[in-house]
Amino acid sequence: MITNEVKKIAHGIKTMEIRGAGKIARAAALAMKIAAENSKAKNAEDFLAEMEKASNFIESTRPSAVSLPNALRYVMRGARKAEGGVDEIREGIVSRADEFIKSSEEAVKKIGEIGANRISDGDTVMTHCNSQSALSVIKTAFKQGKKIQVYLTEARPFYQGHISAREILKAGIPTTMFVDSAVRHLIRDVDKVVVGADSVAANGAVVNKIGTSQIALAAHEARVPFFVAAETYKFHPGTLVGRLVEIEERDPKEVADPKNFPGIKIRNPSFDVTPAEYVDLIITERGIIPPSAAYAIISDLFGWEFGEKT
Amino acid sequence: MITNEVKKIAHGIKTMEIRGAGKIARAAALAMKIAAENSKAKNAEDFLAEMEKASNFIESTRPSAVSLPNALRYVMRGARKAEGGVDEIREGIVSRADEFIKSSEEAVKKIGEIGANRISDGDTVMTHCNSQSALSVIKTAFKQGKKIQVYLTEARPFYQGHISAREILKAGIPTTMFVDSAVRHLIRDVDKVVVGADSVAANGAVVNKIGTSQIALAAHEARVPFFVAAETYKFHPGTLVGRLVEIEERDPKEVADPKNFPGIKIRNPSFDVTPAEYVDLIITERGIIPPSAAYAIISDLFGWEFGEKT
Amino acid sequence: MITNEVKKIAHGIKTMEIRGAGKIARAAALAMKIAAENSKAKNAEDFLAEMEKASNFIESTRPSAVSLPNALRYVMRGARKAEGGVDEIREGIVSRADEFIKSSEEAVKKIGEIGANRISDGDTVMTHCNSQSALSVIKTAFKQGKKIQVYLTEARPFYQGHISAREILKAGIPTTMFVDSAVRHLIRDVDKVVVGADSVAANGAVVNKIGTSQIALAAHEARVPFFVAAETYKFHPGTLVGRLVEIEERDPKEVADPKNFPGIKIRNPSFDVTPAEYVDLIITERGIIPPSAAYAIISDLFGWEFGEKT
Amino acid sequence: MITNEVKKIAHGIKTMEIRGAGKIARAAALAMKIAAENSKAKNAEDFLAEMEKASNFIESTRPSAVSLPNALRYVMRGARKAEGGVDEIREGIVSRADEFIKSSEEAVKKIGEIGANRISDGDTVMTHCNSQSALSVIKTAFKQGKKIQVYLTEARPFYQGHISAREILKAGIPTTMFVDSAVRHLIRDVDKVVVGADSVAANGAVVNKIGTSQIALAAHEARVPFFVAAETYKFHPGTLVGRLVEIEERDPKEVADPKNFPGIKIRNPSFDVTPAEYVDLIITERGIIPPSAAYAIISDLFGWEFGEKT
Amino acid sequence: MITNEVKKIAHGIKTMEIRGAGKIARAAALAMKIAAENSKAKNAEDFLAEMEKASNFIESTRPSAVSLPNALRYVMRGARKAEGGVDEIREGIVSRADEFIKSSEEAVKKIGEIGANRISDGDTVMTHCNSQSALSVIKTAFKQGKKIQVYLTEARPFYQGHISAREILKAGIPTTMFVDSAVRHLIRDVDKVVVGADSVAANGAVVNKIGTSQIALAAHEARVPFFVAAETYKFHPGTLVGRLVEIEERDPKEVADPKNFPGIKIRNPSFDVTPAEYVDLIITERGIIPPSAAYAIISDLFGWEFGEKT
Amino acid sequence: MITNEVKKIAHGIKTMEIRGAGKIARAAALAMKIAAENSKAKNAEDFLAEMEKASNFIESTRPSAVSLPNALRYVMRGARKAEGGVDEIREGIVSRADEFIKSSEEAVKKIGEIGANRISDGDTVMTHCNSQSALSVIKTAFKQGKKIQVYLTEARPFYQGHISAREILKAGIPTTMFVDSAVRHLIRDVDKVVVGADSVAANGAVVNKIGTSQIALAAHEARVPFFVAAETYKFHPGTLVGRLVEIEERDPKEVADPKNFPGIKIRNPSFDVTPAEYVDLIITERGIIPPSAAYAIISDLFGWEFGEKT
Repeated sequence: MITNEVKKIAHGIKTMEIRGAGKIARAAALAMKIAAENSKAKNAEDFLAEMEKASNFIESTRPSAVSLPNALRYVMRGARKAEGGVDEIREGIVSRADEFIKSSEEAVKKIGEIGANRISDGDTVMTHCNSQSALSVIKTAFKQGKKIQVYLTEARPFYQGHISAREILKAGIPTTMFVDSAVRHLIRDVDKVVVGADSVAANGAVVNKIGTSQIALAAHEARVPFFVAAETYKFHPGTLVGRLVEIEERDPKEVADPKNFPGIKIRNPSFDVTPAEYVDLIITERGIIPPSAAYAIISDLFGWEFGEKT
Repeated sequence: MITNEVKKIAHGIKTMEIRGAGKIARAAALAMKIAAENSKAKNAEDFLAEMEKASNFIESTRPSAVSLPNALRYVMRGARKAEGGVDEIREGIVSRADEFIKSSEEAVKKIGEIGANRISDGDTVMTHCNSQSALSVIKTAFKQGKKIQVYLTEARPFYQGHISAREILKAGIPTTMFVDSAVRHLIRDVDKVVVGADSVAANGAVVNKIGTSQIALAAHEARVPFFVAAETYKFHPGTLVGRLVEIEERDPKEVADPKNFPGIKIRNPSFDVTPAEYVDLIITERGIIPPSAAYAIISDLFGWEFGEKT
Repeated sequence: MITNEVKKIAHGIKTMEIRGAGKIARAAALAMKIAAENSKAKNAEDFLAEMEKASNFIESTRPSAVSLPNALRYVMRGARKAEGGVDEIREGIVSRADEFIKSSEEAVKKIGEIGANRISDGDTVMTHCNSQSALSVIKTAFKQGKKIQVYLTEARPFYQGHISAREILKAGIPTTMFVDSAVRHLIRDVDKVVVGADSVAANGAVVNKIGTSQIALAAHEARVPFFVAAETYKFHPGTLVGRLVEIEERDPKEVADPKNFPGIKIRNPSFDVTPAEYVDLIITERGIIPPSAAYAIISDLFGWEFGEKT
Repeated sequence: MITNEVKKIAHGIKTMEIRGAGKIARAAALAMKIAAENSKAKNAEDFLAEMEKASNFIESTRPSAVSLPNALRYVMRGARKAEGGVDEIREGIVSRADEFIKSSEEAVKKIGEIGANRISDGDTVMTHCNSQSALSVIKTAFKQGKKIQVYLTEARPFYQGHISAREILKAGIPTTMFVDSAVRHLIRDVDKVVVGADSVAANGAVVNKIGTSQIALAAHEARVPFFVAAETYKFHPGTLVGRLVEIEERDPKEVADPKNFPGIKIRNPSFDVTPAEYVDLIITERGIIPPSAAYAIISDLFGWEFGEKT
Repeated sequence: MITNEVKKIAHGIKTMEIRGAGKIARAAALAMKIAAENSKAKNAEDFLAEMEKASNFIESTRPSAVSLPNALRYVMRGARKAEGGVDEIREGIVSRADEFIKSSEEAVKKIGEIGANRISDGDTVMTHCNSQSALSVIKTAFKQGKKIQVYLTEARPFYQGHISAREILKAGIPTTMFVDSAVRHLIRDVDKVVVGADSVAANGAVVNKIGTSQIALAAHEARVPFFVAAETYKFHPGTLVGRLVEIEERDPKEVADPKNFPGIKIRNPSFDVTPAEYVDLIITERGIIPPSAAYAIISDLFGWEFGEKT
Repeated sequence: MITNEVKKIAHGIKTMEIRGAGKIARAAALAMKIAAENSKAKNAEDFLAEMEKASNFIESTRPSAVSLPNALRYVMRGARKAEGGVDEIREGIVSRADEFIKSSEEAVKKIGEIGANRISDGDTVMTHCNSQSALSVIKTAFKQGKKIQVYLTEARPFYQGHISAREILKAGIPTTMFVDSAVRHLIRDVDKVVVGADSVAANGAVVNKIGTSQIALAAHEARVPFFVAAETYKFHPGTLVGRLVEIEERDPKEVADPKNFPGIKIRNPSFDVTPAEYVDLIITERGIIPPSAAYAIISDLFGWEFGEKT
């Protein structure tokens, strides 16, 4: 039942009070759990219909957020797979919601542990921008006693590299920072690249902070392994039916003050797309996968599989 | 004879009063002309020995400048090829010096004319940093009535892209500017890339402003033609005997204030090397050449050929 | 039970009265449904044995048709997965047969809708030969109001391009036609390529009309996305156990009259194989997949999976 | 229950009395079967706990053997999937153990049959070292009447090529042998390469005898199909969570007598890693798969899938 | 002196009475010889000026023909290099003109002899369209007793392959013909590709009959050596200063009757450009060169070198 | 004049008393010098004819040796370029012969000096087989105080790596040796590869000890610079007119005793061909060149240029 509490969560997602891919996803799962627990449906059919309604209601609040439909579908699979009456189905929903929330909360930590297995003692690791998952890999490897150092772009226009620099420094890891255009020149000193992801498409392509695809290209050319650290709820289900991930262009002011450049057009694309062929591995909280398995992750976890509603 | 005037020029080069690859080269050629005109040698042998001495003297002032030995060798070839006595050899030197000075002075204009032949109506041309030769190509094409537009990087850390933006705007050419890390994302809209060069190695590799090789790589991946506009005196003779072009690292402060990043190492390499395989054409004032002909340019023009002194 | 009606269908497939991958597949599914509905078996075991027999009987009529075993196996999975007695199994078969027939009938339309998501306003789309699935993508995109144009090969030796040209013209889409050997020269003007498929192997390789692999190679070189529109029943199950897709060579007369070329051998291969690495996406009626997922499609839908009979 | 017989098997694995990937795997499955049959547990929970304990006990004997955890997990999936009481679960374990043993015993023969489908009449097939699976493919194709010949490396330092040469000769197949460094020179005469595998990673990379990756690279360059013949129990589950396959370095004496080379370091790596992009197909006893499906094999067969214990 | 005979030749070139790259070039050389022999100039300066005038006059008749300026410059180099008075310069011109005419007349035969060295016994040689130079290579190899066979495209839209087929058949060489789109499918059976050239650019790119670049791409992918047979007078001097080789589009009627395709645009590009990286060797009458030496050929033979008038 | 001394030298070359590319070349140059000094010709024409005869006589002794015609043509260019009477021409021949002998004798040392410029402090340098030129580069770099180490193949079948190992050890350079098939596995630890050459073709392809091309391929894949150290007299003039470098196959016994492998064919190719695209630089005694300049070297030094006899 779409209780007040469910509505409140939906409202929070809509107004961006609840923000960040992980938080949105967990809120949605929680809302489904609440809806299931409060349902007064008498039979399985009614109950399922009510849940579908709740799911659609929640999804409609921010249809473009990648993690939202993933959370909803993950939970609903618990309903669809359950056999029996209302109680069994409700139990399916509740346990899937709990499972999703727990797994999602621990994802960054888990990614760090799994990914750190791929960092060797003595490695120079390059990263870009400021991704908690990518930094988790680096910091976990360092904590394991591996003597590593970090190479870091400044990440224009927002200089998120400055934030990462301070965070890595705090962890005690030796760090070198440089302008974004020096990546290809310095990549020969690098052993691994680890970046985060904004979303991952069904074909394994990775959408991330502008500049990522250029680093991936340079790493590919130099035969340096390129890793993406991404929670599974960032895998983009809509790409399975051909929807493209749109690339947002942000305010030109972040790049340069337009007043100083009258007549000049300033563009500020925030993300770019790294093709799967330049990605060696994707590190998720459920294991390491090759990008060609992105399709399997989406259909296994979220049910965008053949025969189910798309 | 190493007259006072010759010494003055040599001093100017040494103290960097005379600076810029073109100016240094022309000053050296002029000094050789003066030395030849003032020689009092009585026979060909003495005269040649005197000229060699003058050449070595001038070269020793800035042995690392690429254009200096080129100018000297270009002029000396006039002496070596001439047959006959002092007068004929002197005439050889003077005429080669004049020829070099004139050709070098007109080089940027000539490169513009030749290069503009390769820009088509409707092209979007990307450039990087602030190269007079590259901009000459773009502006000449525009003056010919071709409706082109320019895509321009900001060129961190010095933002030379800002200078170029204003210069192109003044010429009336529509311009779009963006951060350096957006190159690969935007390259699909681009028809040609034209950049300058700091020096060109015997194997066709191009040393230029940091970020150039990354653009070349992205252009190569996207099958966008990549042109380098370079005066012939920038071709690096020493590379023929294995000397490497050293890449200068400049003051970290240009990238970020080290005080704000205690413990973080900041690197600021100023140039990078673009391999010949990513360069489609080099536009010189003496014609368009494939990078594989860099070797021929150096030996044809400057005499770094087999059998001559290296 | 192999009723007369089942036999009639089998005969139709054998004599090629029933032809075309889709029609053969639907006829086979229907025959299985009829056999199940008319069975007089008393227990699950007998019933299943009877169904296996019917399936083998139907498959034997045209063992080389790709879609035939797919239809049969799709239906039989309904039997194998069902638990319970004769009625439950029969129900499993009947519902899977209905499902297959419906999904297959709507496949071309569905492929058009899904594929059109990947065509952008202003695109120039190249196609080859005459594929209903590929044309469905193009026409759907056009109907959505996207201003696209089509580039079209003539498709020697049969000139199926002429048929496509008229069909596209009728739909009102601007079209340009040219000889097959002009593909690489014109590909720079093209934004996407969409072709059909005769069959798709487990490793994602695509068998299609001669010339397709050459277009894919040129598209790959020019970084133009290459899409294949293919109904799932065209995925070739036998390739999983190593069977190769044989390439038919047709009558030389289609190429040139041998009488005019006595002594000259004329070859007329009808299909070629495009390797998976040149295929960006396969558009099926069940979603868009990367070619590396062909293996998953075959085992998920048709049960050529581990543990089942191969 | 960890009976004496179970302990004896575990001891045999530990002391390397039982050796070879296949034998170890089958011994482990058998031990699980014995443990299940002898359990005295009264309820499902106790029984499962006992089985987990047995599984861990057996795995601990040789944690680095790839096939050991695969066998154990394959069997345990029978327990986990079974519903009901002790009897049902025991039955699940016993039948999975029997299934695993049978399938594993027949694997080499099955691989031969499936792989032979990909060898054509007249083929020259290159192989390396001495792999029973690879030779099974070659010999089966020859027995089918295909006129093939074998190209064979000597496989330094152990000359396992000599063993293969004699084995192939015995089968009556024409054979040519040469030094390992002649592979690239002779690859143009070769139609297919078939090698074995020590283990296969989740991303499709293949660990095999030193020299294999060099052959794969040369085959890739020359567009010669490169096949790997590998039993499914060689697929490495640990790679899913980031564990790297370690490459053993063996005694330098196998390469040259260190006494003759005082001061010279002699290295003797026994295996190398062939990246998935150079592998065209992997021939398993359960069908032919592209290397991108390695991930699916591991999760389908051995349960290293999402949600299960990793 | 521009005698009547010279005018007549110029008129013949202008009106296309004299056609074909070789004939035009030889006529121009002859005209220069006549002009030199009939000059009444009294001193070297006047004589040279007269010759320059004659050269410009002849070149103006068909400025777009590649071979015309080559012939003129080849001859004029004889004048410029000669030292002394009118007689010596005239002798220089006459001997260069004779040399050019002789070398050009024998070029096809010479190319055949040189190129045949690269055809081995047993080779299958693919060719495209109808090039006398390419066929000369093939026929010479066959006459030398090498057992070769020819693979031949039909070369739409004009079917010049039919002409070649008859010519090769007449020479007694086994020949197989097929549609243009079958090239990639059949290239695995091919050992060498030999085609002609319409012109060769300074960077080694080859302009030839539409379809050539597609064959080169397929040959490159399959690692089949790709040879171009081209007389040196086909090397395009203008490309050195950036002029592009324009690609002619011919009458659409050659492709299909526009009346049958109202509303359909039919394009008929006659040539395409094969990039140097896909060309293994260029066979000229003066030796075999790698495409990277095209630049050297042009400057060595025709004087488009540094310092000379461009 | 073909004096007895000249005959003796020719005999020595023929009977392989004089062996090794350098020694043969120097002996041939000396023989030409002797022939010139002893000539009794009265006029330039007779003298030149006599010298041509001597040259042909010497060349006929070992027509397959690459360095022989190079030496002869180098010397003869002295005759052809000289102007004047017998004395001037004789002087031309003698001075060219002396020059050739001196330059050739110092070549290995000079190559060492030039090549060492490209070795950096801390480099790991891989080499193959036993090339004096390659070892000269390595040892010179070490003598300059650069802390380098050497990675070395054993070079089956003759184990020339053992010889190199001892030689490098003697020079005090840390060395690691391994089997030939471990190259790709270990290449990631390597900074540069330096090998010798048996001959270099006009297109820059390098013929060298079997295994070289495999190393070049692995280096290319791993982006490790691959250098070839080769005296200029090893550049193969015949390749300019299409002659192929034949690859010798040596006695199978060097690989394995055929008696132990009755029925097995053992092949022992001694050399392979590394394509120019895998060679970064060729280090000659006259400077460092890109492989694309091989053509220029041959025509500049040995006169296999246009217009001269080929």
